[in-house]
Amino acid sequence: MALKFTAEDVKGVYNIMPTPATANGARWDCEDSVDYVESERIVNMLIENHVDAILTNGTFGEGATLTEPEWRKFNQTVISSAKGRVPVFAGATTLNTRDAIRRAKEVMAMGATGLFLGRPMWQELDEDGIVGFYSDVAEALPDAPMIVYDNPEAFKGKMSPRVYGRLAKIPNVIASKYISVGAQYLADIEAAGDNIVIMPLDSDWYYAWKWAPSKAKATWTGSGNCGMAPLLALKDALESGNESLAYTITMELRDAYKTLFPKGNFHDFSIYNIQLEKTRFNAAGLVNAGPSRPPYQRIPDDVAQGAILVGQKYAALQRKYSH
Amino acid sequence: MALKFTAEDVKGVYNIMPTPATANGARWDCEDSVDYVESERIVNMLIENHVDAILTNGTFGEGATLTEPEWRKFNQTVISSAKGRVPVFAGATTLNTRDAIRRAKEVMAMGATGLFLGRPMWQELDEDGIVGFYSDVAEALPDAPMIVYDNPEAFKGKMSPRVYGRLAKIPNVIASKYISVGAQYLADIEAAGDNIVIMPLDSDWYYAWKWAPSKAKATWTGSGNCGMAPLLALKDALESGNESLAYTITMELRDAYKTLFPKGNFHDFSIYNIQLEKTRFNAAGLVNAGPSRPPYQRIPDDVAQGAILVGQKYAALQRKYSH
Amino acid sequence: MALKFTAEDVKGVYNIMPTPATANGARWDCEDSVDYVESERIVNMLIENHVDAILTNGTFGEGATLTEPEWRKFNQTVISSAKGRVPVFAGATTLNTRDAIRRAKEVMAMGATGLFLGRPMWQELDEDGIVGFYSDVAEALPDAPMIVYDNPEAFKGKMSPRVYGRLAKIPNVIASKYISVGAQYLADIEAAGDNIVIMPLDSDWYYAWKWAPSKAKATWTGSGNCGMAPLLALKDALESGNESLAYTITMELRDAYKTLFPKGNFHDFSIYNIQLEKTRFNAAGLVNAGPSRPPYQRIPDDVAQGAILVGQKYAALQRKYSH
Amino acid sequence: MALKFTAEDVKGVYNIMPTPATANGARWDCEDSVDYVESERIVNMLIENHVDAILTNGTFGEGATLTEPEWRKFNQTVISSAKGRVPVFAGATTLNTRDAIRRAKEVMAMGATGLFLGRPMWQELDEDGIVGFYSDVAEALPDAPMIVYDNPEAFKGKMSPRVYGRLAKIPNVIASKYISVGAQYLADIEAAGDNIVIMPLDSDWYYAWKWAPSKAKATWTGSGNCGMAPLLALKDALESGNESLAYTITMELRDAYKTLFPKGNFHDFSIYNIQLEKTRFNAAGLVNAGPSRPPYQRIPDDVAQGAILVGQKYAALQRKYSH
Repeated sequence: MALKFTAEDVKGVYNIMPTPATANGARWDCEDSVDYVESERIVNMLIENHVDAILTNGTFGEGATLTEPEWRKFNQTVISSAKGRVPVFAGATTLNTRDAIRRAKEVMAMGATGLFLGRPMWQELDEDGIVGFYSDVAEALPDAPMIVYDNPEAFKGKMSPRVYGRLAKIPNVIASKYISVGAQYLADIEAAGDNIVIMPLDSDWYYAWKWAPSKAKATWTGSGNCGMAPLLALKDALESGNESLAYTITMELRDAYKTLFPKGNFHDFSIYNIQLEKTRFNAAGLVNAGPSRPPYQRIPDDVAQGAILVGQKYAALQRKYSH
Repeated sequence: MALKFTAEDVKGVYNIMPTPATANGARWDCEDSVDYVESERIVNMLIENHVDAILTNGTFGEGATLTEPEWRKFNQTVISSAKGRVPVFAGATTLNTRDAIRRAKEVMAMGATGLFLGRPMWQELDEDGIVGFYSDVAEALPDAPMIVYDNPEAFKGKMSPRVYGRLAKIPNVIASKYISVGAQYLADIEAAGDNIVIMPLDSDWYYAWKWAPSKAKATWTGSGNCGMAPLLALKDALESGNESLAYTITMELRDAYKTLFPKGNFHDFSIYNIQLEKTRFNAAGLVNAGPSRPPYQRIPDDVAQGAILVGQKYAALQRKYSH
Repeated sequence: MALKFTAEDVKGVYNIMPTPATANGARWDCEDSVDYVESERIVNMLIENHVDAILTNGTFGEGATLTEPEWRKFNQTVISSAKGRVPVFAGATTLNTRDAIRRAKEVMAMGATGLFLGRPMWQELDEDGIVGFYSDVAEALPDAPMIVYDNPEAFKGKMSPRVYGRLAKIPNVIASKYISVGAQYLADIEAAGDNIVIMPLDSDWYYAWKWAPSKAKATWTGSGNCGMAPLLALKDALESGNESLAYTITMELRDAYKTLFPKGNFHDFSIYNIQLEKTRFNAAGLVNAGPSRPPYQRIPDDVAQGAILVGQKYAALQRKYSH
Repeated sequence: MALKFTAEDVKGVYNIMPTPATANGARWDCEDSVDYVESERIVNMLIENHVDAILTNGTFGEGATLTEPEWRKFNQTVISSAKGRVPVFAGATTLNTRDAIRRAKEVMAMGATGLFLGRPMWQELDEDGIVGFYSDVAEALPDAPMIVYDNPEAFKGKMSPRVYGRLAKIPNVIASKYISVGAQYLADIEAAGDNIVIMPLDSDWYYAWKWAPSKAKATWTGSGNCGMAPLLALKDALESGNESLAYTITMELRDAYKTLFPKGNFHDFSIYNIQLEKTRFNAAGLVNAGPSRPPYQRIPDDVAQGAILVGQKYAALQRKYSH
């Protein structure tokens, strides 16, 4: 059976939403930590503000720290709230292939458009292991489109161009959530060809577009949780070829992001990824992401301050671009 | 309530058993992959051959790749087979605090002596995060002794002397499974004091004992699955102060291990940890560990050959020391 | 006194030439290993083929492995052969500040336009150390323009945006030889401002130009030693805004480079940097770079084969673009 | 011709002396920065206090930052001051093989016992490169015994057991200055056999001796510059088998060293190796090592404070053990 959503359909702003936590969500004895009402509200807000797709349960979406019942009810809430208005790619990352397949089948049955899927990370996977994992899931769910999650810190290694070349032969793999546009990006998009849309971060989108406009069809972001307006303005600018505006917005995004990286690098960011993102969402004021779930509830004060500043600066951009 | 098992009780050979897999256990569509009969047989074999404690579900014990029902039934099998003859420390590592606590409560209710517990590893934990995680579990299970799992590859970072110093203040933390005896070991045992028994690998035991005899009360090993005899001989030699025999056995163990490390280092070993260990167990011939579960079912041929050789060499040692 | 050559003057193709070795130049008992006749011939060839500047004695220019008398006579040869037709930036990197200053004064006295200067690398320098080193040299030679050599493998660390920001305040620092255009490049050019021209590698030039056309005024390369024609075609394409031609040439360069990186990364390249570059120059056939000097005379055969292929492929490009 | 000094002769305390600097020795315009009078005084002091051998011009001995005339005159001073009373191993590390050979011949002609030799480090050397370098020097100086300098930070990589195995076949290589006693130490001493004495740091000596008493015949140290007494007491304790005294002194040394490592690891120490060591020597008060030479004259205040404390604590040990 043909996939209902393919690489050709991947376009625009793919926003990863947080999993809103109740006030006691940082406690180890919290039984159900999800604020389902806020979850539904965020879905509606994103869609009403023209998000192109919603992703759930990556790193800051707390794929790791929800209990299974929470994960189930949260994804049901998101999918049923979306009502098919935009594609939903549901996070199904676990510690092994069989649990990932089981969860994947669940969310597909709930009506998810596809999967947002990182690989098991207790033990690092080699090239054959990465490709084998995604092949196994694809074999189990031939109808499920997948956005692969290429995060070198979370999953113990960057996917190589060779991995991209091999994943490009699995029809289910339609996109990847990507980290950093640089030398390897060029090799990766070459290897991925037209079968996998490699999605850069919002603040890299313009730069990816400058290098390879036909490849840079979509961006992943969490900034939509702080307001969709700057992202839509950027999307419009790129689609209409208004390069100077795209550049201006990109500079504004990069300026806002400046204090998100504790020591200026991705490794140190990754140690507080969840906490930093939830802190900036809360600081921007549009969503109530709540606290981070255990064991990731702790964050040094100065690190948190950086994230608060990001949220505040982004909120100003949201005001600027929302009229 | 006082802990029923404390650091003072930690002595001898702590063997981590594999989770035996059925013939189709490497397939993603296998529903129940555990060979429970073989599991019981291994427990009995280990106990009859004088193992001091049994641990389950670390890395090669496939804590990551069992489904939850498999994990539950396997630990029930182990605990009920052990019948209290030796302590059983059951693996309860998951992706977050609450799931770890839930699993921990389950195995304690089953009659486990304590927990064998690694920390969540999707996102790296900083010092406060590591200590916070173990503190939270200890708060939730005040009666559960814990062996912490200090594996820098699996859990994204070596536990520092400062972490050991802080964990030593949590009464539940009674031991740690340790990687490599060297400069940091000295700092770690100093920080751990008498509250945490840092257990070196079998082939490092003698060396740890040479440096700090009072600290080197126990070793962790998987070699017991290939035969307890050399380990018992080593234990006796150390306990009786027969240093030259301890040295001889250690040299034999190290010689047997030589081809276990693909490129001679721990990082490269860690990429195939599960596969290497199960391969060597199967090659030694005493247990049928079966295949590795997905996504860790793949291993390069030359890497596997190294592990087979280890198993065969160890089997010869087992013959030598078992009369 | 004002500098005679400033960041404003840095434009076009900056080619680093090899230091041609005699047939016995790989031997430890070779007394004078430089082929001065070939050195002069290369200088003339580069200038007649419209190189914009010549650099000497970086890594593959064997700044490390010449004796001091060889270094002196080689730079004299280059500078006197150039006869002022193009700027010459002479390598003066040594193990310490005072030797670097002494050598810098020598080459400036010979008529060099400026310095091509890496930092001492026995002991890694922190931020203050890097800035302090270049400040000290600038204080000693207020009239000497410098191209700083930003090679993270050779000098034990990438220069950070903060270092670029501080170096930008030293008037002598007019350019940097840069490694990899990616996320940090954006931060580096922002920090460097207009005072330092960050020069990407030839195959990255187009990409840097796409991101920041006003900053990408010059490229560094060793490919000129294999023929200037493709580089001039690229330069013309960028200067005239013929973007599609620039892209085509860039793809051709990248295709030619494909086998230059032993395991696909810069670290492994760096272990054989000198050998790989001299091998590809010799394979391209325009220059006789001779063997690599000790201790860098050894290279695995398969690694060398990759470099030979690069030289051959580039030679075809040279033929294509030279009529 | 047979070597006059072999692995069999390597015993006891091998102290690396600093190269004392004049008050203006940190300036880039200092012409001769060596305090030759203090150099002679230190040599005499060390010998009168029963050092077993003197080494010059490693890392903190500022092999990198002396001008060649300074290096020459300093080594002449040391060798002539020693008057053959103890072996002198003179540093001859440079950026390439031929310069190392030339310097090696100079110091052997001056009367040095042998060489203290690190490998060129601008470009990392692979296994063949390391072995080839030492082979070439041995071929050039068949009568020169060598202590190889195994410092993974300075020379971009730890020497592997395979390298030790191959170096053990070069008769000239009689010892190595070693970093950290741990798992690899066991593999290294096995590979080195009896042909190379692997010398641990003073505070590791006891631990190396516990593991392999016949191998741990000598230690390298810089602490002799702060007073020979604790080192002699340790040596005597080990030689006489007074294990508990050896342990006590080792604990005292380790306690004194505690603040020498800025962030607790060797990498961060290595960024300020020279500055830290000279600072602690000066703080101990026995020698006047003077300032560090450029570009290594800068050190953060808090880092320097740690080194001062080390010197002061060691001075107390010196008083304790010198009566």
